Amino acid sequence: MKLDFDKMDGLVPAIIQDAKTGKVLMLAYMNQIAWEKTLETGNAWFYSRSRDKQWMKGEESGNVQKVKEVFIDCDDDTVLLKVEQVGDAACHKGYQSCFFRKLNGELTVIEEKVFDPDKVYKK
Amino acid sequence: MKLDFDKMDGLVPAIIQDAKTGKVLMLAYMNQIAWEKTLETGNAWFYSRSRDKQWMKGEESGNVQKVKEVFIDCDDDTVLLKVEQVGDAACHKGYQSCFFRKLNGELTVIEEKVFDPDKVYKK
Repeated sequence: MKLDFDKMDGLVPAIIQDAKTGKVLMLAYMNQIAWEKTLETGNAWFYSRSRDKQWMKGEESGNVQKVKEVFIDCDDDTVLLKVEQVGDAACHKGYQSCFFRKLNGELTVIEEKVFDPDKVYKK
Repeated sequence: MKLDFDKMDGLVPAIIQDAKTGKVLMLAYMNQIAWEKTLETGNAWFYSRSRDKQWMKGEESGNVQKVKEVFIDCDDDTVLLKVEQVGDAACHKGYQSCFFRKLNGELTVIEEKVFDPDKVYKK
């Protein structure tokens, strides 16, 4: 199984979905190393474009994502992971999902905060 | 509401999820025009990197995506659309979802074909 990392300069997007509820939790990017680490460890690893390095989701917050199922799209250039979200929050802003805002004319926050980011992340 | 198109040279990824079942159907990219057309028309529009133009999903197959809900992620650089998938198939290869293959050591097709692409798309 070889993913197509060429279309996006060495990255593929990965959609993260809650395995139990089907809720889409976040989208992040993987490079080859993050992809291999995800398969090897069973925890979701990503590549941070801003920090220019791979990282394990939850390495600081503890909210790791345990991979339950892996799907590849028809073009081999997108990954879908169904995960168990430890801590019940994927978003670094403290929400269950990064998609905590709904657009309906204006943007409205539709989720309750699960944790306070100021208490979880070091400055 | 202003999406951040700068991180990916004018594009943002859009996750398409079936509004009723929660199934993730596909991922595609939007440029500013596709984003505006999606909001204006209520049908999903994307930008094709290979064809270098925006297109309405289903314009050839008839399998349009009627947008039911729109969500924006915490960084304003990813869109999640919950849609009604007309024709019950999003993938150009004839499957309900582009994620019709599951990786478990090897890749296995886990969906039944909904349509025959050779009969739906012109060569």
